[in-house]
Amino acid sequence: MNGAEALIQTLHDCGVEVCFANPGTSEMQLVAAIDGQHGMRAVLALFEGVVTGAADGYGRMADKPAATLLHLGPGLGNGLANLHNARRAMSPVINLVGDHATYHLHYDAPLTSDAAGVARPMSDFVRISKSNRDLPHAGAEAFVAAQGYPGRIATVIVPADHAWDEGAGAVAPIAAPPAPQAPEAAVAEAAAALKAGTRTALFLGGRALREGALHAAGRVAAATGAKLICETFAARIQRGAGRVAVERLPYFGEMAAEFIKDYDTIIFAGAEPPVSFFAYPGKPSWLSPDGARLVRLATPREDPQAALAALADALGAPAEPAGVATPGTPPVEPGPLNPANLAAVVAKLLPENAIVSDESATLGGACFMFSAGSKRHDWLALTGGAIGQGLPLAVGCAVACPDRKVVALQADGSGMYTVQALWTMAREKLDVTTIILNNSSYAILNIELRRVGVANPGPKALSMLDLSNPSLDWVALAKGMGVPGVRVTTSEGLYDALSEALAAKGPRLIEAMFV
Amino acid sequence: MNGAEALIQTLHDCGVEVCFANPGTSEMQLVAAIDGQHGMRAVLALFEGVVTGAADGYGRMADKPAATLLHLGPGLGNGLANLHNARRAMSPVINLVGDHATYHLHYDAPLTSDAAGVARPMSDFVRISKSNRDLPHAGAEAFVAAQGYPGRIATVIVPADHAWDEGAGAVAPIAAPPAPQAPEAAVAEAAAALKAGTRTALFLGGRALREGALHAAGRVAAATGAKLICETFAARIQRGAGRVAVERLPYFGEMAAEFIKDYDTIIFAGAEPPVSFFAYPGKPSWLSPDGARLVRLATPREDPQAALAALADALGAPAEPAGVATPGTPPVEPGPLNPANLAAVVAKLLPENAIVSDESATLGGACFMFSAGSKRHDWLALTGGAIGQGLPLAVGCAVACPDRKVVALQADGSGMYTVQALWTMAREKLDVTTIILNNSSYAILNIELRRVGVANPGPKALSMLDLSNPSLDWVALAKGMGVPGVRVTTSEGLYDALSEALAAKGPRLIEAMFV
Repeated sequence: MNGAEALIQTLHDCGVEVCFANPGTSEMQLVAAIDGQHGMRAVLALFEGVVTGAADGYGRMADKPAATLLHLGPGLGNGLANLHNARRAMSPVINLVGDHATYHLHYDAPLTSDAAGVARPMSDFVRISKSNRDLPHAGAEAFVAAQGYPGRIATVIVPADHAWDEGAGAVAPIAAPPAPQAPEAAVAEAAAALKAGTRTALFLGGRALREGALHAAGRVAAATGAKLICETFAARIQRGAGRVAVERLPYFGEMAAEFIKDYDTIIFAGAEPPVSFFAYPGKPSWLSPDGARLVRLATPREDPQAALAALADALGAPAEPAGVATPGTPPVEPGPLNPANLAAVVAKLLPENAIVSDESATLGGACFMFSAGSKRHDWLALTGGAIGQGLPLAVGCAVACPDRKVVALQADGSGMYTVQALWTMAREKLDVTTIILNNSSYAILNIELRRVGVANPGPKALSMLDLSNPSLDWVALAKGMGVPGVRVTTSEGLYDALSEALAAKGPRLIEAMFV
Repeated sequence: MNGAEALIQTLHDCGVEVCFANPGTSEMQLVAAIDGQHGMRAVLALFEGVVTGAADGYGRMADKPAATLLHLGPGLGNGLANLHNARRAMSPVINLVGDHATYHLHYDAPLTSDAAGVARPMSDFVRISKSNRDLPHAGAEAFVAAQGYPGRIATVIVPADHAWDEGAGAVAPIAAPPAPQAPEAAVAEAAAALKAGTRTALFLGGRALREGALHAAGRVAAATGAKLICETFAARIQRGAGRVAVERLPYFGEMAAEFIKDYDTIIFAGAEPPVSFFAYPGKPSWLSPDGARLVRLATPREDPQAALAALADALGAPAEPAGVATPGTPPVEPGPLNPANLAAVVAKLLPENAIVSDESATLGGACFMFSAGSKRHDWLALTGGAIGQGLPLAVGCAVACPDRKVVALQADGSGMYTVQALWTMAREKLDVTTIILNNSSYAILNIELRRVGVANPGPKALSMLDLSNPSLDWVALAKGMGVPGVRVTTSEGLYDALSEALAAKGPRLIEAMFV
């Protein structure tokens, strides 16, 4: 077999089942190899940011990597922003980046670039294939690297001649090491701190927000009265009625600092101490209260469930957790859409086992709060702040979990970055309901402009934050890519449209107007 | 003034008049500074690939840099592909990339990344500001770097605190050095080679394709009978009736090699000897005929017009050039659209002084050929092969040349990468007529798949090259972004729609169906 076939066979043997792809000429051998590999699904996207964002969503839900297929340095460049988000989510992802044949590189043909250089800033592991026979080894190593707990971004540069040269063979998968465990001393320190403290909190992130870890955290809360708080932008929270609930740290630094200012003891599991998302003149970056005792129970790269369970046991905690969410959501107020009645509708209708891709920005904040008592679901946030994640993430979730409904809460401005995701939803008939929150504005920037000290912005500055000239018509955009859409302006209209979309299978778009 | 104000004032004093922008929180001070800077236009785009592609188009037409405004490493990442194209076009571009405040970086907040690392693969010059007072110096240096003949990509990383700290001042512009001249020995060698050769050619690229250089090349042709050939993907060719015409080297390597195989002498001005765009198994990368005498008269970074004029004089060439294109275009055949009648309509209707942004791929090849005798125009190609250039480039051309009609010949697959450009066209009321060539396919890849040796592609491989499921509806996409559109299926329909669009001012989209 040629190198491409050996690579794809190896990845398949490792357990890679999906390749999100936007290939070009230099990846044609890889396309052919995927073509011949039963058991590896190929999902085409019309832009690389969709490819990498989908791989992120897939990784968050499947807890194993999908492959991406990208076209040289520029194609990888187009995927960097969502690789940044995936890296911040600690998602497992394997990028296969085609490059010129090794002997062609020195001719400096127009598409020549430093593909590895493009990869490095957003990858945890970069491996350039050395030969057709080395290529499958690179793939096996990338698979292990991608599974570095809980997940890493592994990028393999695939020169075209290594892909097409015959004489390669698949190599055996390498076993990934188990999840690192938190040191026992950390458990003991956390237990002692919780006993000594008067106002205590567990600050949870990453894998600590999965159901089992939350159950253990709830037991700790039952034993100690500790408050359960989660990071602002979590990769995946398992929540809803019957699960242990957590409160989310607010986004703006001063509100976040206020939120945790009274705790004398904070135990961290799956998260580092929170910092301000951006810096602002005269405002602190570090948010934890001065003098508080901060204990790292489990870093984001250590198994938090085992650590939390050990902590609960060390505290003699009861078997039943505290803070289990009870069923129920706020009533829906009729009338023109606002953040509250939007949230009430979404919370009420969210179906069992839904997956929420949340890039709702300023308008969607209440959705998270109101859905604490919704049916059980997974909530996936914008982890790295690089906007344009939400729709691609929804694609990946739907591919990973074909039997679950995906709901994308998508702000208009950020949705435009990777709007091409709608086409892949239509092509693959993915069960995604997208709710576009249309306020014709980069609303967050209107706030931020003032927060960084610009007191009297002029018309040119304000125009840079304004999307109303012309207004986007998302129903038309969706139609252009084959997704049925409808525009709503009231909570009643949203209720009906969302009910209908959730009852059906396949992609739908609802444009919720806030103007 | 603060650092941002000092930077923007400095760039303005250097002559920068336009900033293509997609800002975020860390760039709010720069937005405010641009707001206060009369004489600097701010053009918002909804995606960074539009920003950088527009700066490329502006640079090609204005021969001076626009600024871009980008949001940290991920925002720059989204702009890399078109920076790659701009770099290959040798366009002058200044990127201003906001970054976290220096003191905030070590907290590793979610958007933290190695912005300079992201910049380097696609920049000729990367400068990280050292302080608020250093920031304007960085800007002045970037302006000089961007003007490194004929143009370079200069990137300045702007930490937020350097932007907002008070106590900075604008600095004086630095004079850019003049264009380097080709050595006299090269002129003498070229003259001797042309006299000695029997079948000779001038191979022209870059600035050698401007009117003055072409005139000189035409004089050389008049004196020697040398054929005039241009690179396949040129940044900007000044052409049409009354100008010296050049024939374009074919795209596929074997056709290109065939095209030049009989020349015993090839003189290069503004271009390096051509190489195959991609490598293919068993096919050569180097295209020049074995044993031919290859003379580099002027490299792409030396003034080709002066060198060609000196060469013409050294040969005692007549004042009048050979090979001047005569007016006239092929007749338009009626009926369903095909590459020939598309080209005939475009060639016939192209208005005086039009600017053509050509990302027409497989369908548009004839457009270039048929328009040799059209009214005078500029023709801008996809220089770096990173698709998604065409629509952003048209934006930049229209901003640089508000009194000229811009025609974007845009293939469907590549158009989708940066489809957001349509919104900026609508917002700025840019005089761009976009013709989408819709064949519902990555048609080039259907050819390339076989060329790299995949003899019998299966359905999964073919589906990766197919855009028909679902078909894109570009009229709906354009409507979604505020651009009036119409779909045509015949040459008569195209003729009418294009006539109407060219007679009007402002953005229009024509979806030309080839299926």
